[in-house]
Amino acid sequence: MHTINAHIHPKKNLRVLSKHEVSQICDINSKTYELFRRCAFAVLNCGSNSDDYLSSIKQFHDFDIRVSQEDRGITLDVKGAPSHAFVDGVIIKGIREHLFSVLRDILYTEDSVIQSQRFDLNNSEDITNATFHILRNANILQPDYSPRLVVCWGGHSIPREEYNYSKKVGYELGLRGLDVGTGCGPGAMKGPMKGATIGHAKQHIKTGRYIGITEPGIIAAEAPNPIVNELVILPDIEKRLESFIRLSHGIIVFPGGPGTLEEILYLLGILLHPSNVDMPFPVILTGPAESAEYFDQVNDFIGLTLGKKAQQRYDIVIDDPVRVAKKMKSGLVDVLEYRKSTNDAFFFNWGITIAKSFQQTFEPTHENMAALEISKSMPIHELAANLRRAFSGIVAGNVKEDGVMAVKKHGVFQINGDANIMHAMDALLTQMAAQGRMKINGDYIPCYEIVK
Amino acid sequence: MHTINAHIHPKKNLRVLSKHEVSQICDINSKTYELFRRCAFAVLNCGSNSDDYLSSIKQFHDFDIRVSQEDRGITLDVKGAPSHAFVDGVIIKGIREHLFSVLRDILYTEDSVIQSQRFDLNNSEDITNATFHILRNANILQPDYSPRLVVCWGGHSIPREEYNYSKKVGYELGLRGLDVGTGCGPGAMKGPMKGATIGHAKQHIKTGRYIGITEPGIIAAEAPNPIVNELVILPDIEKRLESFIRLSHGIIVFPGGPGTLEEILYLLGILLHPSNVDMPFPVILTGPAESAEYFDQVNDFIGLTLGKKAQQRYDIVIDDPVRVAKKMKSGLVDVLEYRKSTNDAFFFNWGITIAKSFQQTFEPTHENMAALEISKSMPIHELAANLRRAFSGIVAGNVKEDGVMAVKKHGVFQINGDANIMHAMDALLTQMAAQGRMKINGDYIPCYEIVK
Amino acid sequence: MHTINAHIHPKKNLRVLSKHEVSQICDINSKTYELFRRCAFAVLNCGSNSDDYLSSIKQFHDFDIRVSQEDRGITLDVKGAPSHAFVDGVIIKGIREHLFSVLRDILYTEDSVIQSQRFDLNNSEDITNATFHILRNANILQPDYSPRLVVCWGGHSIPREEYNYSKKVGYELGLRGLDVGTGCGPGAMKGPMKGATIGHAKQHIKTGRYIGITEPGIIAAEAPNPIVNELVILPDIEKRLESFIRLSHGIIVFPGGPGTLEEILYLLGILLHPSNVDMPFPVILTGPAESAEYFDQVNDFIGLTLGKKAQQRYDIVIDDPVRVAKKMKSGLVDVLEYRKSTNDAFFFNWGITIAKSFQQTFEPTHENMAALEISKSMPIHELAANLRRAFSGIVAGNVKEDGVMAVKKHGVFQINGDANIMHAMDALLTQMAAQGRMKINGDYIPCYEIVK
Amino acid sequence: MHTINAHIHPKKNLRVLSKHEVSQICDINSKTYELFRRCAFAVLNCGSNSDDYLSSIKQFHDFDIRVSQEDRGITLDVKGAPSHAFVDGVIIKGIREHLFSVLRDILYTEDSVIQSQRFDLNNSEDITNATFHILRNANILQPDYSPRLVVCWGGHSIPREEYNYSKKVGYELGLRGLDVGTGCGPGAMKGPMKGATIGHAKQHIKTGRYIGITEPGIIAAEAPNPIVNELVILPDIEKRLESFIRLSHGIIVFPGGPGTLEEILYLLGILLHPSNVDMPFPVILTGPAESAEYFDQVNDFIGLTLGKKAQQRYDIVIDDPVRVAKKMKSGLVDVLEYRKSTNDAFFFNWGITIAKSFQQTFEPTHENMAALEISKSMPIHELAANLRRAFSGIVAGNVKEDGVMAVKKHGVFQINGDANIMHAMDALLTQMAAQGRMKINGDYIPCYEIVK
Repeated sequence: MHTINAHIHPKKNLRVLSKHEVSQICDINSKTYELFRRCAFAVLNCGSNSDDYLSSIKQFHDFDIRVSQEDRGITLDVKGAPSHAFVDGVIIKGIREHLFSVLRDILYTEDSVIQSQRFDLNNSEDITNATFHILRNANILQPDYSPRLVVCWGGHSIPREEYNYSKKVGYELGLRGLDVGTGCGPGAMKGPMKGATIGHAKQHIKTGRYIGITEPGIIAAEAPNPIVNELVILPDIEKRLESFIRLSHGIIVFPGGPGTLEEILYLLGILLHPSNVDMPFPVILTGPAESAEYFDQVNDFIGLTLGKKAQQRYDIVIDDPVRVAKKMKSGLVDVLEYRKSTNDAFFFNWGITIAKSFQQTFEPTHENMAALEISKSMPIHELAANLRRAFSGIVAGNVKEDGVMAVKKHGVFQINGDANIMHAMDALLTQMAAQGRMKINGDYIPCYEIVK
Repeated sequence: MHTINAHIHPKKNLRVLSKHEVSQICDINSKTYELFRRCAFAVLNCGSNSDDYLSSIKQFHDFDIRVSQEDRGITLDVKGAPSHAFVDGVIIKGIREHLFSVLRDILYTEDSVIQSQRFDLNNSEDITNATFHILRNANILQPDYSPRLVVCWGGHSIPREEYNYSKKVGYELGLRGLDVGTGCGPGAMKGPMKGATIGHAKQHIKTGRYIGITEPGIIAAEAPNPIVNELVILPDIEKRLESFIRLSHGIIVFPGGPGTLEEILYLLGILLHPSNVDMPFPVILTGPAESAEYFDQVNDFIGLTLGKKAQQRYDIVIDDPVRVAKKMKSGLVDVLEYRKSTNDAFFFNWGITIAKSFQQTFEPTHENMAALEISKSMPIHELAANLRRAFSGIVAGNVKEDGVMAVKKHGVFQINGDANIMHAMDALLTQMAAQGRMKINGDYIPCYEIVK
Repeated sequence: MHTINAHIHPKKNLRVLSKHEVSQICDINSKTYELFRRCAFAVLNCGSNSDDYLSSIKQFHDFDIRVSQEDRGITLDVKGAPSHAFVDGVIIKGIREHLFSVLRDILYTEDSVIQSQRFDLNNSEDITNATFHILRNANILQPDYSPRLVVCWGGHSIPREEYNYSKKVGYELGLRGLDVGTGCGPGAMKGPMKGATIGHAKQHIKTGRYIGITEPGIIAAEAPNPIVNELVILPDIEKRLESFIRLSHGIIVFPGGPGTLEEILYLLGILLHPSNVDMPFPVILTGPAESAEYFDQVNDFIGLTLGKKAQQRYDIVIDDPVRVAKKMKSGLVDVLEYRKSTNDAFFFNWGITIAKSFQQTFEPTHENMAALEISKSMPIHELAANLRRAFSGIVAGNVKEDGVMAVKKHGVFQINGDANIMHAMDALLTQMAAQGRMKINGDYIPCYEIVK
Repeated sequence: MHTINAHIHPKKNLRVLSKHEVSQICDINSKTYELFRRCAFAVLNCGSNSDDYLSSIKQFHDFDIRVSQEDRGITLDVKGAPSHAFVDGVIIKGIREHLFSVLRDILYTEDSVIQSQRFDLNNSEDITNATFHILRNANILQPDYSPRLVVCWGGHSIPREEYNYSKKVGYELGLRGLDVGTGCGPGAMKGPMKGATIGHAKQHIKTGRYIGITEPGIIAAEAPNPIVNELVILPDIEKRLESFIRLSHGIIVFPGGPGTLEEILYLLGILLHPSNVDMPFPVILTGPAESAEYFDQVNDFIGLTLGKKAQQRYDIVIDDPVRVAKKMKSGLVDVLEYRKSTNDAFFFNWGITIAKSFQQTFEPTHENMAALEISKSMPIHELAANLRRAFSGIVAGNVKEDGVMAVKKHGVFQINGDANIMHAMDALLTQMAAQGRMKINGDYIPCYEIVK
């Protein structure tokens, strides 16, 4: 891999650091520094088109980044950065801003959330409050913003026609003045942003928002594409998922792998909570004609596990980007009315209830994975939470550093539970693997075993 | 065709009209009104994907547009507008601005150029001056703008891989902070803008310029795509070509049909002028691997007609967007130095000499076409001018209203001259027809006959 | 006087000139050049605090200014410029912009109004149209601007307490978000702008407009103060007065000399026109307690000459800036409603009728002054027009170059007419002289004689 | 006093509060709420022209303010607000922004500085760090800002000619593109901002900064004038003084009372620190001709107490605003060079050493005041610190709530020490009282007694 050494000045995000912060991030033996180096590398590696954690280890090993104070702010010195982040030796500005977003969020989370004693991170309300503070510090919460942020979920590894379809949907959203938030990686996370960019350009909208929401575990596999003009790094997957829910005004789901399933289950688990049943929340599952079968399967799995009520919380639209965009736009009108009537903020959905079981960090160790209870006799709400965890573990085993290393060491995860569900889950996952949704390159070797 | 009636308020361009101007544009029996209606329809019809003038005659017949004065400025009332200019009943803002650009330029040209006695339009300097005034009035001339406007030429009807290639080149230009000007139609005029939009987005550049330069005769066939954020309508093809030369800091030529040839010949004819030989002016002919042969042919034709010196004024780059962009960028450095050393404006190339034979309007009547002298014994410069006219006539016969009607009435144009050149020209045009570069849809029926 | 040589680049206004325009303004034997030099000197001399034309002749003689084309636009080279236009050797930006406004308007008026054959300047409609074009070219006409431009009239030479009062009124206007237009000289033309600047600052309004409207004859005596951020130079006093009327949404009159009287008579003459009687147009005469008597006199003179109806078109408010501002603000609501109901533009009062006798240029020669008919038997409207001319002539004799020279050569102007009016006029003028309203410095020597 | 009830929406500053913050500020029994109510009243009372704490107690008693969450952000409901903060019933925007600045800073200080365990407020470095965080959170620290912030100190109660003089100095600073920071009250804190506003307007500078730096104890007596467009509330006088030093690039001192003396002593105490002797830091004491004697006295007092070296750290300029501005501007060049050479931030003077004795909170109780050691045998640096405390106590006794109440209860403060210094101090204070510098209205009754 070509690499580059460079000296980088920020332009927009956090350029004012205290002496204490600079020394903290300069301490190359600290956890904070290591976390920063890791995320910075991921951000710079965004054009690599690989989600294979192990393959980039060597390059990462040689990579170095340092922060220093200068008269007009701070600068970054990088060594051994992937060259695709640069054009003729100059870093792409979108990527440059991401570097400073990473720095901003890591420092803030460390100092103001973790080290500070303000938040009891075992308390549901405090978890939400901490998430709010991280988002506010990242300038994501904008008060004069009417409901128009559509979060798009879907796989980072998808076939060409699904990618093109996601661009078309993004284009139609952009033409209607809607903004896009995603998990900020490639595939179904990049397509809608690219499409929306063209839609916004035709509407001469210069203030389009392309919000990327990520976390340190996933950022290496799903590096933010440079169109993202607002990036925020939450400390873990649960706070990232909560951010999606509280920031978005509606959600579109494209086809994807286990990560997408994790997201759907998380979302439905919350929408099924008794306090949330009357809250309008437009959810659309969509893809090109070729994806019709995929959504049938997903729909059946949801029907089997969470039941009819869950199925009623979303629409499935096949091969019709205009209809998706119109449906979403009209759904947003209900959201606007509801927020007004409840005096809830437009920029943060305080009103939606997220149970603690959806907020608590789930560590996908072999033990925890094996211990997951998956049974039809559980409250639906709890079942959704545990299914979410199971898929979360599979994502970790596929592409996250800790998960990949754990599987390498201890063998595949064991998942067991209700036989019907296990069968359906197995079928779904097998199909995803067959469709290449598990990994971008190479054959997929499962990181799990369904104990039937 | 779906049509729409709407009431349209401008936002940026000319919204302040005098009573006299409003009454002038409201006089539906005036030539000014008819010209406006024609161009307005073309602008609204931009999504139609057809360059077949005759097929849209009926829709155009039912189309109506009226201007009126309101308290906050002027408004347009349209009836029977093509529905693809609208999203959920609201006009796309890019198209809306184009409508008002059309109105601005038609009124200005009529009142301040044609009716006013200020310019002697038979005098070379005055032609340039009039062109300058139209461009200045359209706000195209921006003093604090360093040389970075790359004009992209090429066919409106090109195969998919050439279109994708033009997007990639535009993307690399955009990544390097360069802007794009084109003739503002589809194909090779749209691709580079789309690509540059994504490049600019990644660089977080919000001031990217996408300049469309057109004229009333061609606008129907090459309606401006809505990404164009600065549109100017010159009164005829010659002033449009002069605008390309005087505004641009470098030119990239993609594959195209006779219109592209017209442009190449015009450009080379000027660059071969003795006063211009030392002026840096980067010109790059480029396309994907599949277009290599096409450029061989074009290169040969130029060698045969204009000679080696002409060939030395351009580079041919095949299948390498990054190299194109880098070469252009370094060429622009020379342009910058040259303009500084001669104290010439960055925003308007006063220094380049354009002979009157390139400025005079050429009416492609059957008589004029037949009378064109094309001979190797002519000064090269004059030969280039006449070849340019020949191709201009073929464009008219293919897609411009007057030309299409004339051919319908009097049969195909006769072109004759030096036998070698005639053979080469015939081969080139036949090949273009075979490659589908003459028209977007349907089989091509030649509008000319080469008399060998 | 300290003078400075400098090289000046424009920032905002007209920086893009054609070669033809540059050569035109560089021809130091042309009338256009001389006019430009004259106005440029006036603009640079703005801090001089003198309206004595003769005293600055020598400095003016040594003053030189040249235009040249450079790569990024045009530049001005000045020699012998008054040093008070500079801070530490660098020109004050407000003054710099004025220089380029002067250049813009002189060139436009010469080329597009006078030389071009578009306007018949003996035709009332065409005069209005030409005025409109000059204002539009100067970017004064802004379509998205709700009615809030308050024109402030009053003397350039006024006592301290009146000046302070005019600042307070401006402050109250600024606090209410209103903008200020004036004849752009010192005294009552500067005070309201200064006050409004502070009012706007407290309201954090950064888009406040301080519009100066002037003409080449008066600019030397009433140089625009640098707070003026939009300056326009009309070709003569009549078009300047018409601009005041058509641009403003309301008018406040502070105490002043014969120029102020000219303005009041002009305004009332128009408002008394039968077509204008129903049009809302807030007019307030105001000053501090000390000025109460002054306004009594003015009011009496209007009663005597134009009658009760004229007196009903204005309010007199003494010593109450808040009431002035509130009254104006509520008057503007009526203006808004009226414009909406008649679909008239907010930015240009097309609807008001200005008779040709108010538009025609009045040359204040001795002959013309002596020939003015001033009689109670005339239609009121005509009487107002002629009284306006009489005061206009006195202003010329006091401070305009041509007038001052004519009086120097041929003795004082003779004004004669109806005995009552002559007596009242004499009393009014004598009082003005006694109050120091005729000239800024030195004793006043009348330039006229009332023939009773 | 006229009062008003209103519903206020913020525009710029902190409009995004967490649920927890809203509930915190809504708890009307909390200290946070009371602090907010107090400061909010002060801000709204800014036009009152009184620094008499006791006189406004009743109005304050009836005053109420509440925060609530709304769909687009938060709103404030005020009851019994002083009417001079409103224009025609609408709050002046400058004051509105101040309200939200107050809210922002009080919440941030409470939650992120005091409650959070991040800062050890007995540690010098941590005090600086906490101050840095409050300023950063208030958006005061701007990285792309070259050294041009001039802090102006001086009395809140000064005679007219000194006020006018401070306006003129501000005007000359503004003409040179410099910005102004002050303690944000009336008198010498308002004059320079008003002047700079006009200077900026003439230079067409729209980004002028008028920074007000205050603290809850003084804000009631020195309410921010609405020109202030950036306001920050530090938790105590010591952090406020540190902010002045670390933010400013140079300091101008106008005549004032004991508060001004406190500031001078604080500044000199720091500049005399051995680590700071080589750091460029322009300090100018200035006033009109009438103030020459005042500065003689101050200069003598400094000579007597801190010696010649202290006197060398400032210039005294009498009656010459242009010279003050030029001197400051050239001093800033040295500051720029120094910061560059040491790689210190432009926006925060990390490099200057502030000893802990200048950072620690001094509570001006009777006991503490009496215990102050003031002796010529002390290190100069310590003497400056204690003298600073003595004057700080007098300010408290004059205008701060706690101080006024303490004096009311326990009688005047006793100050004792070295006889020479005590005599000089007595003379200085007596003179200040005679000149009306102690209080805005009414006769001054000393709150202290010099024990000689």
